[in-house]
Amino acid sequence: MKQRLARYMPILEWVRHYDRATAAKDSLAALIVTLMLIPQSLAYAMLAGLPPVTGLYASMLPLIAYTLFGTSRTLAVGPVAVVSLMTAAALGPLFAPGSAEYAGAAMLLALLSGAVLLLMAVLRLGFLANFLSHPVISGFISASGILIALGQLKHILGISTGGENAVELVWGLLGALSQMHLPTFIVGTTSLLFLYLVRSRLSTWLQRLGMSPHIAGTLSKIGPVAALLLAIAAVSVFQLADAGVRVVGAVPGGLPSMRLPTLDMTLALQLLPAAVLISLVGFVESVSVAQTLAAKRRERIEPNQELVALGGANVAAALSGGFPVTGGFARSVVNFDAGAQTPLAGALTAVGIGLTVLLFTPLFRNLPHAVLAATIIVAVLSLVDLTALRRTWRYSRQDAAAMAATMLGVLLIGVESGILLGVGLSLLLFLWRTSQPHIAVVGQLPGSEHFRNIERFAVIQSPRVLSVRVDESLYFPNARFLEDRVAELIGRYPQAEHLVLMCPGVNLIDASALESLEAITARLHTAGIQLHLSEVKGPVMDRLRNTDFLAHLGGQIFISQYEALLALDPDTTHHARERQRECFGNIKENAG
Amino acid sequence: MKQRLARYMPILEWVRHYDRATAAKDSLAALIVTLMLIPQSLAYAMLAGLPPVTGLYASMLPLIAYTLFGTSRTLAVGPVAVVSLMTAAALGPLFAPGSAEYAGAAMLLALLSGAVLLLMAVLRLGFLANFLSHPVISGFISASGILIALGQLKHILGISTGGENAVELVWGLLGALSQMHLPTFIVGTTSLLFLYLVRSRLSTWLQRLGMSPHIAGTLSKIGPVAALLLAIAAVSVFQLADAGVRVVGAVPGGLPSMRLPTLDMTLALQLLPAAVLISLVGFVESVSVAQTLAAKRRERIEPNQELVALGGANVAAALSGGFPVTGGFARSVVNFDAGAQTPLAGALTAVGIGLTVLLFTPLFRNLPHAVLAATIIVAVLSLVDLTALRRTWRYSRQDAAAMAATMLGVLLIGVESGILLGVGLSLLLFLWRTSQPHIAVVGQLPGSEHFRNIERFAVIQSPRVLSVRVDESLYFPNARFLEDRVAELIGRYPQAEHLVLMCPGVNLIDASALESLEAITARLHTAGIQLHLSEVKGPVMDRLRNTDFLAHLGGQIFISQYEALLALDPDTTHHARERQRECFGNIKENAG
Repeated sequence: MKQRLARYMPILEWVRHYDRATAAKDSLAALIVTLMLIPQSLAYAMLAGLPPVTGLYASMLPLIAYTLFGTSRTLAVGPVAVVSLMTAAALGPLFAPGSAEYAGAAMLLALLSGAVLLLMAVLRLGFLANFLSHPVISGFISASGILIALGQLKHILGISTGGENAVELVWGLLGALSQMHLPTFIVGTTSLLFLYLVRSRLSTWLQRLGMSPHIAGTLSKIGPVAALLLAIAAVSVFQLADAGVRVVGAVPGGLPSMRLPTLDMTLALQLLPAAVLISLVGFVESVSVAQTLAAKRRERIEPNQELVALGGANVAAALSGGFPVTGGFARSVVNFDAGAQTPLAGALTAVGIGLTVLLFTPLFRNLPHAVLAATIIVAVLSLVDLTALRRTWRYSRQDAAAMAATMLGVLLIGVESGILLGVGLSLLLFLWRTSQPHIAVVGQLPGSEHFRNIERFAVIQSPRVLSVRVDESLYFPNARFLEDRVAELIGRYPQAEHLVLMCPGVNLIDASALESLEAITARLHTAGIQLHLSEVKGPVMDRLRNTDFLAHLGGQIFISQYEALLALDPDTTHHARERQRECFGNIKENAG
Repeated sequence: MKQRLARYMPILEWVRHYDRATAAKDSLAALIVTLMLIPQSLAYAMLAGLPPVTGLYASMLPLIAYTLFGTSRTLAVGPVAVVSLMTAAALGPLFAPGSAEYAGAAMLLALLSGAVLLLMAVLRLGFLANFLSHPVISGFISASGILIALGQLKHILGISTGGENAVELVWGLLGALSQMHLPTFIVGTTSLLFLYLVRSRLSTWLQRLGMSPHIAGTLSKIGPVAALLLAIAAVSVFQLADAGVRVVGAVPGGLPSMRLPTLDMTLALQLLPAAVLISLVGFVESVSVAQTLAAKRRERIEPNQELVALGGANVAAALSGGFPVTGGFARSVVNFDAGAQTPLAGALTAVGIGLTVLLFTPLFRNLPHAVLAATIIVAVLSLVDLTALRRTWRYSRQDAAAMAATMLGVLLIGVESGILLGVGLSLLLFLWRTSQPHIAVVGQLPGSEHFRNIERFAVIQSPRVLSVRVDESLYFPNARFLEDRVAELIGRYPQAEHLVLMCPGVNLIDASALESLEAITARLHTAGIQLHLSEVKGPVMDRLRNTDFLAHLGGQIFISQYEALLALDPDTTHHARERQRECFGNIKENAG
């Protein structure tokens, strides 16, 4: 009982060995992550089209939920760029950003994706994440990065424009360029430059000043907080808000009120597809981060339990006025490097964010949007990896095509259409690829029991026995292809009396392939050829025994291709057998 | 040049060897098929919601088109039950059956599916037909058979009712039962009985009377014509039309006028999904029939060229006032048995139908719908095979689920929804199945170079080298699963220093799996374990060489698992090697 509970609440495991030393390490990590998370939370909330403070709300309860249910000891949950973008893409067309309806819908969206994740956990549907092949995910993230950066430029330039896709965004920016607001532009570009330098140079500089790499790295990670404070100071001192620099403005102090989002069923149905995509993308991202970090300490993460934890985190976000969240890469790495030992670090981070909400929200009144935009841009541009396209192209045309389709879809049509386009194409290409497996005519390597492709090796071929090796599981994508190939082969080998399908690479025969085999058997019979199988794997054989295929087959099932040839055409095969006997004889003696 | 032309017009090949004898055989076959096709064409046109005569139109030009482009020598093209049902399902909601708009839309639908088939031929998209796994097709056909039979009962009962799905149909029939029209009912049930006896008994009876089985079989095949003639006679003699028995009525004599269907773009877009499904279903059906018959004479059919031929046939149907057509099973078998030698038999059949249209259409004035309905019912009930569900269930739960979903979908929702449901589910289940491939920890069989599953065999395991065999191609459906399993394994074998992935069953490594391998390599490194590969297939190796994976790997690629163990942990492996040397020594001597 306790065992099973522990499986669903890993905290029950590790909390028992929790001691002072661990607590100290976790606290330090929590402090650093808090400082890193504050600007990110505010910024990603803005990116999601929500009041910045909701970003902080989304960085409290969700972290605690993950602490209770998560299997990764270092994953840091919260608002992340891509999911925030997807949130904006889902809600933008429906409500006015910043409106109460918009915020309510964001909560509902979080609730829905939480529900989807939990449902996937219960029904063990984690495998659905596999639909998002790596090229699709990577193309999706790169394109999203570009889209996000483009979308934030307006805050840097201090102009108001918008757009669903890259073209509209660029067009809007160019159109409104004339109304650029200089003070905002100065604040924005300065923050961009500052953040860029902090990210790329600070650590090296500090190390030159004799600081330990570790500390230097940490400081450069929490640099954005400095940018925030400086910007706030500048705005306050130079009265930039009155000069027209857009600032966050009055922020409701205190913790978020706990309440259910209004459950509008028609809206829920409208948002469901977006919620599913958000859940899948978030899950894939989060799990890959968690696994990478877990491996470094030979820890294990349990994908299905991760569904529970992320689901819980999103439900928590929904209940506390937040929006969809998931495990973030950058912050998790920071958490790991800062020495977090247990998920409690996450809970402590939540406390840190909580204190911020309670004590420091007045500060944010003068926080300019431009600096938040700068934070986002610098963060997301690091996600853009266009070289991946070339790399993938060199390895596999099909995968590159899927990646390109996803990127173009995201940039030109929209986030969801893009990802669906990519998934659809990769499924098509996948089906196309497995629909024509490698099927080789094989012959016996002289002086051995091995059989190899006649086109690659100098082998002995029996005139009467046609040996065909199938290098793929037999299932509906390629069942008919097998029929075609066999039909073609018996045309090419008119003198063949037996056809032996060599099945070492056949890990599955589904009902479609079974039908095809039945059809092939019948057709070969009418053509006066006997079908046999060889090297059929145990599990496959077990299934075939449940059918009357073996009865229809008429032919035999041979342990090995060699046994088959030995039985069907001894003359060609006899010699090797003799040697083999001696050989195994020797082996036995030596073994005995 | 001539060669290439011949590839796209097989007729250029066989027509050169065409002689009297062949002509005679083809003509006889054509005559018999014509007699069989007349009632079927009329009936399936009615089933498609069109004036019966259009069935004859759809049985002329399409057959000639197939004669020119088809690769099967015995396939008989024309209206078939399932496709006619799909036509009715696509057009029923849009237009009033029998109306001119309806007929025009049917022509457009034929044109569209012709275009789709030709496009599939050009883009080599024949593999798309694989989406229709065998369980889906078989479930679809059985359910369609039931749906068709239910839909025709109203003609037998002489009542007017309708419905999109089985429930509505049954409900409608029960509701209108009170208005049953006795004369119609008598005609209908008599024809049903007659056709049933002809189909199931006639052949045996005739043989008892000393007739040769072949002729007896043929006569029983053309029995329906007798039913038609008898029914027409009965109606004429007893003035049944005036008594309220619905008859075909005045039929426009003469050949159909050649004209393009009106190209209404919005309508075309509306019909496109239906056209795609009709094309795929028709293609799958036609090709499997053609292949079965071709094999009996060791002939070959070229699936991609079949797309051209069927596409041409449907375009021809569209131009001559017809509706979607494809290769039919029953009539093709009859054509084959009747001794058709070349596709010319099809062209001759077309001539036969043409003569019928020119000379005998007045006959059809008094042809009662009831007898056509009886023809349909007797024909389609032979398509219904409910035992297939049990058979499939015994073999594979997943495939049975897909079949059941298709059947229920077709019966309860509709034809298209049903097939889409089945396809979607089989894709999901397929992904689920391949997303968790068989991955076995293997050890060395004592005294051999073979490695086997440690859970099935008593094998030697090296404490330092972990040997893992992957029984599946590595691609996106299972890439992450591999990561999970490896992570779990290194947790279970803490003392392992090397991990060797044994890849005899890996026929493909796509970009996603490559990423996973990169991730696994990195994670293993951080965990102090070196990854190696063994028994990597040639094609897979070629691709890996194009990447920098091998550079990151650090480990080696071994020809065989045995070589790997020999290099990484000689102590455990040494002995077998010695024996092997002797053994291969012997072999060489004997060989030399």
